[in-house]
Amino acid sequence: MSEITQKILSWYGSDNPGTLTNLARLLEQGSLAGTGKLVILPVDQGFEHGPARSFAPNPPAYDPRYHFQLAIEAGCNAYAAPLGFLEAGAREFAGQIPLILKLNDHDLLQNEADPIQAITGSVADALRLGCVGIGFTIYPGSSYRFEMYEQIRAIAEEAKQYGLVVVIWSYPRGSGISKQGETAIDICGYAAHIAAQLGAHIIKVKLPTAHIEQEAARKVYEKEGIPISTLADRVRHVVQCAFDGRRIVIFSGGPAIGEAELLEEIRGIRDGGGFGSIIGRNSFQRPKAEAIRLLQQIMNIYRGQ
Amino acid sequence: MSEITQKILSWYGSDNPGTLTNLARLLEQGSLAGTGKLVILPVDQGFEHGPARSFAPNPPAYDPRYHFQLAIEAGCNAYAAPLGFLEAGAREFAGQIPLILKLNDHDLLQNEADPIQAITGSVADALRLGCVGIGFTIYPGSSYRFEMYEQIRAIAEEAKQYGLVVVIWSYPRGSGISKQGETAIDICGYAAHIAAQLGAHIIKVKLPTAHIEQEAARKVYEKEGIPISTLADRVRHVVQCAFDGRRIVIFSGGPAIGEAELLEEIRGIRDGGGFGSIIGRNSFQRPKAEAIRLLQQIMNIYRGQ
Amino acid sequence: MSEITQKILSWYGSDNPGTLTNLARLLEQGSLAGTGKLVILPVDQGFEHGPARSFAPNPPAYDPRYHFQLAIEAGCNAYAAPLGFLEAGAREFAGQIPLILKLNDHDLLQNEADPIQAITGSVADALRLGCVGIGFTIYPGSSYRFEMYEQIRAIAEEAKQYGLVVVIWSYPRGSGISKQGETAIDICGYAAHIAAQLGAHIIKVKLPTAHIEQEAARKVYEKEGIPISTLADRVRHVVQCAFDGRRIVIFSGGPAIGEAELLEEIRGIRDGGGFGSIIGRNSFQRPKAEAIRLLQQIMNIYRGQ
Amino acid sequence: MSEITQKILSWYGSDNPGTLTNLARLLEQGSLAGTGKLVILPVDQGFEHGPARSFAPNPPAYDPRYHFQLAIEAGCNAYAAPLGFLEAGAREFAGQIPLILKLNDHDLLQNEADPIQAITGSVADALRLGCVGIGFTIYPGSSYRFEMYEQIRAIAEEAKQYGLVVVIWSYPRGSGISKQGETAIDICGYAAHIAAQLGAHIIKVKLPTAHIEQEAARKVYEKEGIPISTLADRVRHVVQCAFDGRRIVIFSGGPAIGEAELLEEIRGIRDGGGFGSIIGRNSFQRPKAEAIRLLQQIMNIYRGQ
Amino acid sequence: MSEITQKILSWYGSDNPGTLTNLARLLEQGSLAGTGKLVILPVDQGFEHGPARSFAPNPPAYDPRYHFQLAIEAGCNAYAAPLGFLEAGAREFAGQIPLILKLNDHDLLQNEADPIQAITGSVADALRLGCVGIGFTIYPGSSYRFEMYEQIRAIAEEAKQYGLVVVIWSYPRGSGISKQGETAIDICGYAAHIAAQLGAHIIKVKLPTAHIEQEAARKVYEKEGIPISTLADRVRHVVQCAFDGRRIVIFSGGPAIGEAELLEEIRGIRDGGGFGSIIGRNSFQRPKAEAIRLLQQIMNIYRGQ
Repeated sequence: MSEITQKILSWYGSDNPGTLTNLARLLEQGSLAGTGKLVILPVDQGFEHGPARSFAPNPPAYDPRYHFQLAIEAGCNAYAAPLGFLEAGAREFAGQIPLILKLNDHDLLQNEADPIQAITGSVADALRLGCVGIGFTIYPGSSYRFEMYEQIRAIAEEAKQYGLVVVIWSYPRGSGISKQGETAIDICGYAAHIAAQLGAHIIKVKLPTAHIEQEAARKVYEKEGIPISTLADRVRHVVQCAFDGRRIVIFSGGPAIGEAELLEEIRGIRDGGGFGSIIGRNSFQRPKAEAIRLLQQIMNIYRGQ
Repeated sequence: MSEITQKILSWYGSDNPGTLTNLARLLEQGSLAGTGKLVILPVDQGFEHGPARSFAPNPPAYDPRYHFQLAIEAGCNAYAAPLGFLEAGAREFAGQIPLILKLNDHDLLQNEADPIQAITGSVADALRLGCVGIGFTIYPGSSYRFEMYEQIRAIAEEAKQYGLVVVIWSYPRGSGISKQGETAIDICGYAAHIAAQLGAHIIKVKLPTAHIEQEAARKVYEKEGIPISTLADRVRHVVQCAFDGRRIVIFSGGPAIGEAELLEEIRGIRDGGGFGSIIGRNSFQRPKAEAIRLLQQIMNIYRGQ
Repeated sequence: MSEITQKILSWYGSDNPGTLTNLARLLEQGSLAGTGKLVILPVDQGFEHGPARSFAPNPPAYDPRYHFQLAIEAGCNAYAAPLGFLEAGAREFAGQIPLILKLNDHDLLQNEADPIQAITGSVADALRLGCVGIGFTIYPGSSYRFEMYEQIRAIAEEAKQYGLVVVIWSYPRGSGISKQGETAIDICGYAAHIAAQLGAHIIKVKLPTAHIEQEAARKVYEKEGIPISTLADRVRHVVQCAFDGRRIVIFSGGPAIGEAELLEEIRGIRDGGGFGSIIGRNSFQRPKAEAIRLLQQIMNIYRGQ
Repeated sequence: MSEITQKILSWYGSDNPGTLTNLARLLEQGSLAGTGKLVILPVDQGFEHGPARSFAPNPPAYDPRYHFQLAIEAGCNAYAAPLGFLEAGAREFAGQIPLILKLNDHDLLQNEADPIQAITGSVADALRLGCVGIGFTIYPGSSYRFEMYEQIRAIAEEAKQYGLVVVIWSYPRGSGISKQGETAIDICGYAAHIAAQLGAHIIKVKLPTAHIEQEAARKVYEKEGIPISTLADRVRHVVQCAFDGRRIVIFSGGPAIGEAELLEEIRGIRDGGGFGSIIGRNSFQRPKAEAIRLLQQIMNIYRGQ
Repeated sequence: MSEITQKILSWYGSDNPGTLTNLARLLEQGSLAGTGKLVILPVDQGFEHGPARSFAPNPPAYDPRYHFQLAIEAGCNAYAAPLGFLEAGAREFAGQIPLILKLNDHDLLQNEADPIQAITGSVADALRLGCVGIGFTIYPGSSYRFEMYEQIRAIAEEAKQYGLVVVIWSYPRGSGISKQGETAIDICGYAAHIAAQLGAHIIKVKLPTAHIEQEAARKVYEKEGIPISTLADRVRHVVQCAFDGRRIVIFSGGPAIGEAELLEEIRGIRDGGGFGSIIGRNSFQRPKAEAIRLLQQIMNIYRGQ
């Protein structure tokens, strides 16, 4: 095991050796094994946006086995998905790629100002499917945020007891903040900090913009001169907000974008000391060979090449 | 053990020896050991106000280990924080400073007229992390206050069974009272009494002003001539409201203020018979050496020096 | 993952993907990764024979960290030990070597005609320590054998629910059989079959001799002309007894013996289609460098070199 | 906290911060605070030998408060006793001395060849009384030893979850060994190792003699030339048997003996690297002033004075 | 409440106010209210000896109401009986006399060398019947004694949680001791001590003789010159054995005897500092008026008249 992995494990002193073991499995897998960097393939888009919006651009992706294969072939660190998708391939691909069971999910069949997700899996499911951890989304900014914080608190307590890793998707959304505020630098940092305080081992946030949402925050950012002009600056700040870099923070790429733009983002994450990416639509909505090529380019950037 | 500590323990006759033991650990720790006075370092500001507003004024404070070190080096009686912050240092600093797990937390990502907090930790967490007790915020004045009273009732019942100390942050807030009323003397005394009635061993309230919020209360304060003109008067009254001084009442300093002003407040708390302070932003937002010097001045005042 | 590993996983159709994942972790670890062969380091000798008899021949082995290091450096597939030994290294070596928690243990402080073991760990322990599976000894031939069968039945049911691998040490012993019968070919085959019927994923037996213990069995062995003259013959027969080779059967080397003799045994296991070895005293009672060299020779034999 | 204490805590990597905190409380208490050495006052003799045999030599010791006072005044690290004795003083002396609840006890009202103890307290009792840990006796050598191993396994699992320290009194006794064998060097080392494998944090054994009980062991002691001629040699060997010194091993003084003889034993324990003593009858059967003087001499020896 | 009662309550510092309240109800009832002395009417003889042997001498005693009336009219502190007897009068006499539910019982339908009792009631029964406490018999000396110790440990834990008083009948009996030894002074003191260590609030033992049963004890009694020649001496010693008088110890009168002899025994208990008597057959086997007269004489003696 690499020294970097061992150093990262040392940050989690209140976790049992079971959780450390599963964290090590994640960090020592795939092309980025032992680098302290992670690229995870998440496929909960079908639940979130509907199957056609998610998979019609690349029809083989309707098949749940496709995503296991993509993650394995591309050398990802893990594959994260809801219950159904994992159940549909967990036996066939057992032991080939660390799995993260997404324990709550959301659809777009209501247009809520204040979203919440449905709990769609359990810690017991994660164990019977051989997962290294569980994933959970919170929406800081929603009027239901406290309900979600309480859900993940109880789930995380159980997961940690059984040696699983807890991954929190911390996505600001809801009537408490503006649309622009969802990716504002102050809100992204805040969201990362809340996830860390809730006990997350790995935190997934969106790439922040230079927008500042809250007036009370703006005063501090200006007074203290917190650098936020470049993406790397902002990534560095978000990582700092998550216990000064002592929690793993990874970034999601958002909607499918141009390759050059995406790779530029990856360089920003790397330069800012981010721990990696969750790459969903930008991978599974491309033909497989192309997706693998792109993911490998991303991993090369994280390896500093 | 000092006679003062033993006298304080004698007030808690319905608690088991386990809770008394943990209360004694708190009272016999640090620079104020055995004086019956307490200075506690609380760091839940990151969750409440966001990380940048909390830690950018003193960036080393982004690191969770910083606060353990600050509390230990300054000679505080305890360090109180949410789950994530405690998990991130509990092994490294095991046995060096009594810990209080803050079991509920609030963020500023919604602008509620009637606030509540999310439950973010458990009694089992407090035990596995080696805490002496648990902390919980109630908002008397909020339309959700009864839900919070019921939450802490159930949690306190469990905590006491396992020998933990129950600390209630009693912060009047919500549509039932005015902004000015949040620190009104009648409301602060009322809030302290409610916390005591809910079974708190230690009660944390804000420093009261001479404002009186409720008309029905004003008549009594005037008729009975309750002295409230000086800070010491008001502290004395709040302490009286908490079972005539037979429950430990400590005061929070509020936002970071000037040093002279803060020390004057501490003298007022001391002169009024308050049991000490929770000093958050006024300590961790200063450079460490300065914070330690200030905390030691505060402790000197409490020791009557 | 190798095709051989995938083929082996296909034999366990009633197990959940969690158990298959942990089985794959075992099979894809170390020098024999992907060969379908296993060499496991077991260190329960301290409990069984006392610490001096176990570790005085190689004093560094008194230190629980030694065995983790030995298993890792030698490229073993797993390290199996009782609770105390695993607890003493599981954090330090988290993620570096698959662990098997031995859930029952025996000492030599009574001289029983009919032995049983004490249950000394739990499935919950295995999970919090990050183990891939649990180990359990049964003594077919003891008057307490049914009690042991019932214990492992209940434990295996729980372990499989949580995705763990079940390894049964099936050691004939007790008043029902003679001393010579403990390694008789008919009894070894019988013991392997019982373990398989109890639901073991991996079965550990002793190397069989050509002795036949039971008269009723002798008639059949002779009538059917079952070949048992060479060690390879006997290994082949025991593997056949364990569901015709559709359960992993590994063999224990017994007391420390000469190197040449040991390697000859390994060739017999390989030639008979055995799945590998558990090498305890023959490894940890030698100086570490020598033990590693020997283990590598053994692994080379299993790789067909 | 001393560096020695921190080093000792580092040996317990699979325990949660709660258990480490309570272990630190033990190690940082009294005259030996921070030295890595322990002197514990155990008073279960009344249950074991009857009250007159235990307390008539020093009648104030009939009073349960006496033993709290003795442990506190002498500067012991902890006081260990059965439920009744702890209940009778836990409120009055709350927070003044770490307590260990002895969870099983034995009396001499039957003359069993194979002894067992009765379970006389619970983990919940230990928590409500404010104890740092629980104590449990096993009798390796008794035909009931496996029942005791299974009892402490279940109790230890629960205790560790709640952050308590597990202390095992490992006293060889029963039909499996001779009277002389109860303190034989091979058996004492074996007993210490079994306790360590059962997950004990602290192990209490009797001082070993140079007798070797088991023939199979004798061969190894002679062949390997294990030094056992002096008490220091034997203590060093027993400590080695308990995970090469990575578990705390303390020694009991046995029946009340002459002061010079006792102090000579203490020097042997110190020179052999033992972690300290449990001193029962040799302290509470003397007048208090004399007992304190003797305990302080013992502590001086452990401090290397 | 009398100062004596308050002083007695102060001995039970680890019990909750509920248990103290019930203890106070016992101590402040009847003719001996507030004296610190107790006379309790126990009627479990029907179960133990059969109804005819128990009640034929005074046939009204067949009626369960009779005993409630007797206890009330005589001014006893409490009435103790098995489930059936209490159920048969608890409504009719609710609130008139403190009740103790005897939770285990024994019959004479087997002639065992090593007796145990059957559990015949529950803590829940005690609560629904309005009892102040529960009673339980242990037989130190029986080979089943540890089973009984474990039963009362679990029952006492539950009873104390619900605020009940725990009364242990500690009656040495069984193959471990001689017939004469059942009332030997060393054994009675031992039995009282064991009950106290098991957490009893009130201990009931038989009046001791000057016989010494155990050789190891005899040496101490003689060496230390423990006075045991008069009944008062022996009572004083037994009280000392029960935590130096900090647990309530009462004495049973045994078989019906002559009035003068009985009163002489009472004077001995009083002079030795005993806390009172349980008077069964000597009261309910006499005509009611006579029994009341006798009980009043007994109470007069305890009042020092």
